[in-house]
Amino acid sequence: MEEEQGSHVPPLSSGKSSLQGLDIAHAFFKPLLQSAPPSSTKRHTKVSVIGAGNVGMAIAQTILTQDLTDELALVDAKPEKLRGEMLDLQHAAAFLPRTRILASVDYSVTTGSDLCIVTAGARQIPGESRLNLVQRNVALFSDIVPRLASHSPDSILLIVSNPVDVLTYVAWKLSGFPSNRVIGSGTNLDSSRFRFLIADHLDVNAQDVQAYIVGEHGDSSVALWSSISVGGVPVLSFLEKKEIAYEKEALERIHKAVIGSAYEVIRLKGYTSWAIGYSVASLARSLLRDQRRIHPVSVLAKGFYGMDAGEVFLSLPAQLGRGGVLAVTHVHLTDEEAERLRDSANAILEVQNQLHLGGGGGGGGV
Amino acid sequence: MEEEQGSHVPPLSSGKSSLQGLDIAHAFFKPLLQSAPPSSTKRHTKVSVIGAGNVGMAIAQTILTQDLTDELALVDAKPEKLRGEMLDLQHAAAFLPRTRILASVDYSVTTGSDLCIVTAGARQIPGESRLNLVQRNVALFSDIVPRLASHSPDSILLIVSNPVDVLTYVAWKLSGFPSNRVIGSGTNLDSSRFRFLIADHLDVNAQDVQAYIVGEHGDSSVALWSSISVGGVPVLSFLEKKEIAYEKEALERIHKAVIGSAYEVIRLKGYTSWAIGYSVASLARSLLRDQRRIHPVSVLAKGFYGMDAGEVFLSLPAQLGRGGVLAVTHVHLTDEEAERLRDSANAILEVQNQLHLGGGGGGGGV
Amino acid sequence: MEEEQGSHVPPLSSGKSSLQGLDIAHAFFKPLLQSAPPSSTKRHTKVSVIGAGNVGMAIAQTILTQDLTDELALVDAKPEKLRGEMLDLQHAAAFLPRTRILASVDYSVTTGSDLCIVTAGARQIPGESRLNLVQRNVALFSDIVPRLASHSPDSILLIVSNPVDVLTYVAWKLSGFPSNRVIGSGTNLDSSRFRFLIADHLDVNAQDVQAYIVGEHGDSSVALWSSISVGGVPVLSFLEKKEIAYEKEALERIHKAVIGSAYEVIRLKGYTSWAIGYSVASLARSLLRDQRRIHPVSVLAKGFYGMDAGEVFLSLPAQLGRGGVLAVTHVHLTDEEAERLRDSANAILEVQNQLHLGGGGGGGGV
Amino acid sequence: MEEEQGSHVPPLSSGKSSLQGLDIAHAFFKPLLQSAPPSSTKRHTKVSVIGAGNVGMAIAQTILTQDLTDELALVDAKPEKLRGEMLDLQHAAAFLPRTRILASVDYSVTTGSDLCIVTAGARQIPGESRLNLVQRNVALFSDIVPRLASHSPDSILLIVSNPVDVLTYVAWKLSGFPSNRVIGSGTNLDSSRFRFLIADHLDVNAQDVQAYIVGEHGDSSVALWSSISVGGVPVLSFLEKKEIAYEKEALERIHKAVIGSAYEVIRLKGYTSWAIGYSVASLARSLLRDQRRIHPVSVLAKGFYGMDAGEVFLSLPAQLGRGGVLAVTHVHLTDEEAERLRDSANAILEVQNQLHLGGGGGGGGV
Repeated sequence: MEEEQGSHVPPLSSGKSSLQGLDIAHAFFKPLLQSAPPSSTKRHTKVSVIGAGNVGMAIAQTILTQDLTDELALVDAKPEKLRGEMLDLQHAAAFLPRTRILASVDYSVTTGSDLCIVTAGARQIPGESRLNLVQRNVALFSDIVPRLASHSPDSILLIVSNPVDVLTYVAWKLSGFPSNRVIGSGTNLDSSRFRFLIADHLDVNAQDVQAYIVGEHGDSSVALWSSISVGGVPVLSFLEKKEIAYEKEALERIHKAVIGSAYEVIRLKGYTSWAIGYSVASLARSLLRDQRRIHPVSVLAKGFYGMDAGEVFLSLPAQLGRGGVLAVTHVHLTDEEAERLRDSANAILEVQNQLHLGGGGGGGGV
Repeated sequence: MEEEQGSHVPPLSSGKSSLQGLDIAHAFFKPLLQSAPPSSTKRHTKVSVIGAGNVGMAIAQTILTQDLTDELALVDAKPEKLRGEMLDLQHAAAFLPRTRILASVDYSVTTGSDLCIVTAGARQIPGESRLNLVQRNVALFSDIVPRLASHSPDSILLIVSNPVDVLTYVAWKLSGFPSNRVIGSGTNLDSSRFRFLIADHLDVNAQDVQAYIVGEHGDSSVALWSSISVGGVPVLSFLEKKEIAYEKEALERIHKAVIGSAYEVIRLKGYTSWAIGYSVASLARSLLRDQRRIHPVSVLAKGFYGMDAGEVFLSLPAQLGRGGVLAVTHVHLTDEEAERLRDSANAILEVQNQLHLGGGGGGGGV
Repeated sequence: MEEEQGSHVPPLSSGKSSLQGLDIAHAFFKPLLQSAPPSSTKRHTKVSVIGAGNVGMAIAQTILTQDLTDELALVDAKPEKLRGEMLDLQHAAAFLPRTRILASVDYSVTTGSDLCIVTAGARQIPGESRLNLVQRNVALFSDIVPRLASHSPDSILLIVSNPVDVLTYVAWKLSGFPSNRVIGSGTNLDSSRFRFLIADHLDVNAQDVQAYIVGEHGDSSVALWSSISVGGVPVLSFLEKKEIAYEKEALERIHKAVIGSAYEVIRLKGYTSWAIGYSVASLARSLLRDQRRIHPVSVLAKGFYGMDAGEVFLSLPAQLGRGGVLAVTHVHLTDEEAERLRDSANAILEVQNQLHLGGGGGGGGV
Repeated sequence: MEEEQGSHVPPLSSGKSSLQGLDIAHAFFKPLLQSAPPSSTKRHTKVSVIGAGNVGMAIAQTILTQDLTDELALVDAKPEKLRGEMLDLQHAAAFLPRTRILASVDYSVTTGSDLCIVTAGARQIPGESRLNLVQRNVALFSDIVPRLASHSPDSILLIVSNPVDVLTYVAWKLSGFPSNRVIGSGTNLDSSRFRFLIADHLDVNAQDVQAYIVGEHGDSSVALWSSISVGGVPVLSFLEKKEIAYEKEALERIHKAVIGSAYEVIRLKGYTSWAIGYSVASLARSLLRDQRRIHPVSVLAKGFYGMDAGEVFLSLPAQLGRGGVLAVTHVHLTDEEAERLRDSANAILEVQNQLHLGGGGGGGGV
């Protein structure tokens, strides 16, 4: 099956390649004398994307356009759809730097990945809370994650499926990986939406706006108002120093607009794809190119801000590099913000306590 | 309507912006003394994409990722889908160079475009020939093209909708534009698929493979075997000089695989998107950045290779720059190849003669 | 003279092109029927760099690598050096997107520029203060600026020559341009050095460090300590909230290291080039691509922070776009910082009052 | 010494860092629970450039701008110049993706490189033939190459110093590396100049021009006329089919112009830098990103085109990837072209036979 997926020519009844009879490769190229095969330490960069739906394909295509990997492997349960997506990307070869693109329903195609991005999962139904999705997705992860971990034991796992915080915890448990190599895309996209809303209002470049949403990816996320700066100017303290009054309700409206954004896009076009594609590609760049940049992503949050009750993943500003999560930025939270984080942690823990992670590699006893 | 589409915040029943109460823009920025507004000759680059379906959005997103324009306008007949796509792109602002993204059902949003890319049209049904689509699309173009031409009288029209050759002719007639400013995406993608198949077989970079498919985009396209070179080595004359036998059937199988590729992707995933997105973005780059590169695209072919019977558009290797089509490369064709081109031209002309292009701006009497 | 510089082939005694006898262009390309010349409103982007020394060439080459312009014109007083640099860039054509590269000792080669970058000037001698250079450079600007303004009346002038603040004022006066179209590279590079030192110390990505140095480019620049944030966390208030003691002397040492950097590089390698090249290219990107990003650059500072005594240019965080300076960010300064800014302004004014800007276009009576 | 070079802050008499007293890193970041250090198999990409002169720095800077490596090490014999160049690149950190930049006079800084680029060598004096340089450079290579080979035994050696063909042979012998991991930049730049001259004459994009110069880098190089194609159209057979006469002298004039280009640039500006920088960066991209593209570079040519007399390196179109030279394209040469190649080979061999490669690692008995 994998062979068939990896092949690029239409299956012919004769079983012959369409290029048979034109086997010029051996005539065309000639090896050097006294050459040697490349050392096995000459590694390529390899990324696997699990799930060839709208989210997975937007991620795969953005990673391809941005030339972030030497090899890209796609896995999905639907072989026809998968092969169609692979061919559609391969047909663009003349317009892109060379990337080897593979696809298979068999996880062996992911062998030796540096980064495995999991987007598989039931799609969020309009109006459905992210937490409601969890029941449908844990079973799926019990199948996916141990296979990924076994084929790429040194890889970083980047979870995009929702509810992302619980599923990142689940992936961590099932993989047996150290915590720095299991990351959820978390509020990286929420924060981008936050930055866009502020940038659009001020007519500045969103890259000049710093602003974090942390905590749970979803309705209970926490906007860090004190983190907002524009062009290096902290906005709230600017307003205070200039004695410009602002209503706390205005701040809350922005946060609500961010939370509403995902629901709105799903309502309007049926799913989200482009923004999550760019968001995850930006994480992939920091991880694969060792950029050491700081992103709000879902990490093992136990021990931060008094979240000591259990092993919970939620988004905090984390520094990402080739080793995965290098550290978490020790942002100062107000008492209210820290309290809300702990509330989110407890809500997530409650869900986690109801899960049964049977059958997974290292997840026994969870 | 346009106003609503261009707005980025969720509609609130109160009609108030979510950012109201935090109006810091005026406090935050201060103008210089003795400054002046920018001169009206300081133009931005603007691209409009008509049709927010899979093809249109893949094009729009690739143009955005590759930072080819300062302003991107989307037009579609479905306001909800359109707004969803616009928001989904806007939410990625923090990950991209700044591009202004607009969307509206009203064509006035396209005003002042440098390039208008038309993807609107009925989707090709699996198994349907491209020529069969024409009846459903001419009526649509009679609505679209005059509006585009009137809002952007100096723009270049790039037609992607199928059957692309006939529709490019239709767009030319309806726009009243000179022929160098009306281009069809034509066999640019077919040629890329051709190059990929050869590159994959030889395990070389597809960018090192030169190979053209010209003529009609579709089943009657013409592969220019003598144009194939790999790393600067013309392949067929290489085989002849090395006295390596090859079967003509092998060449034909490659061509058939190219033609079959589009049908196969449609059969497998339901539509094509990524490759056409990259293909059209490569054309946009040559046009907008005045790259003067040569692409096989659909141009007014009358007068070339004895195609004198009528005003027909089909793909020839054309040099593209800021002025649109700068010239057509005078490739040498074999008698057989030229004959096949003329046959395609006649088949297209026959279809064109049955069309009534009523109601269009400049298309009277066609 | 311009003709000769623009030509790319070695001068032959016969005066014939080396390609004569191979005039295939007319045979190779053929025009379309019913085509029309491109409209005159189809403008390219054009950048001129005045001064082909180490700084000017590092800027030109970085702009070329980053594909920021369609046309690049170089001007220098030394025709041999100039032609050598032009050829050296042109020879890389196969490795770069197409950019037309021109060079001449005659300013008419700059006609129609969108951006003119002036790097001409006496090189800073090791140990020489930037202000000491002014006498040698005003005379030069009286020759350069009116010519640029006359050939490109709508362009933006970006001054890099030192002492940059005084010379930006001089260029403003000589050009007669509105203040938003005359900018000095100012402390954009000082701020980058500041960000690098902090990023290197914390082992984070310098792009995650926000930190401004404003005021005069040189020994009296002002570090805005309160503007420093890392990954969105304001550093000083972080230290205060965490009750971590820091010595004010430590802050001052960083600032001194920044000021010393330029002198150190000049002492070690004889000049600075790469960092100023990247710094100015980043300004060019914001200006030409209308990025609306905020950079600390030298702008007309009269009216800001009580600097009302005269028309002085010094660096403030300014938003840059296609119109030049769009606005100045209203950063909150401490009383001490504002006081230091005013001191710098007065020192610059004192220099300016001793200048005679005779002969310039709009600079009469200065 | 290395420590001092790697350090980024100005040396202070107290020996204290300028950032002392502001040691916030430990407070700012906090590690995750249950994390683990990155596996040793998580390798970065590392490039070393030997020689910090105009050529070496243009290469280093272009590699940096194009984001081709995670770590860049510079080595030069002059510590002050070296440190100045390192600082000048580091100061641009805020404008670039993060790359770790190191510099030292000690070769241990190159440890673990994937690619070592050697530019060290006496500069070509105006009028001096490339072959005349050899005597001055072999002694230098006897010092450099064994150190590089010992610190990075799996690396690829890319030789840029002139005369490049002989010195690539010397590097091969001294390194003891297999032939696929020792490459000379050869005629990659000559070919680019050739492509530029043709593209400029036809006003097309040089990336659409295929044309090779092979053989010795220098006066005896061989232009492969039959390899020239423009936009996929082989030029000479085009002229023949169209019965357009051309003079063989015209072709020779182009070739002479290419050969003269390097001398002309050296005469005009004193050295070449930009074009060789872009040229070598394009080779680095193919090698490091496994692009499998075909470049005319200096490779072990024994066994090709009857060059059987000895171990000679000269340029042939070679496919480059992560393993170094993957294969050589079997271009068809005319009898005259093959004869000229063999003449070049014999001339190079004659020089080589006069060399004594004492002291090198694997070079005994040469």
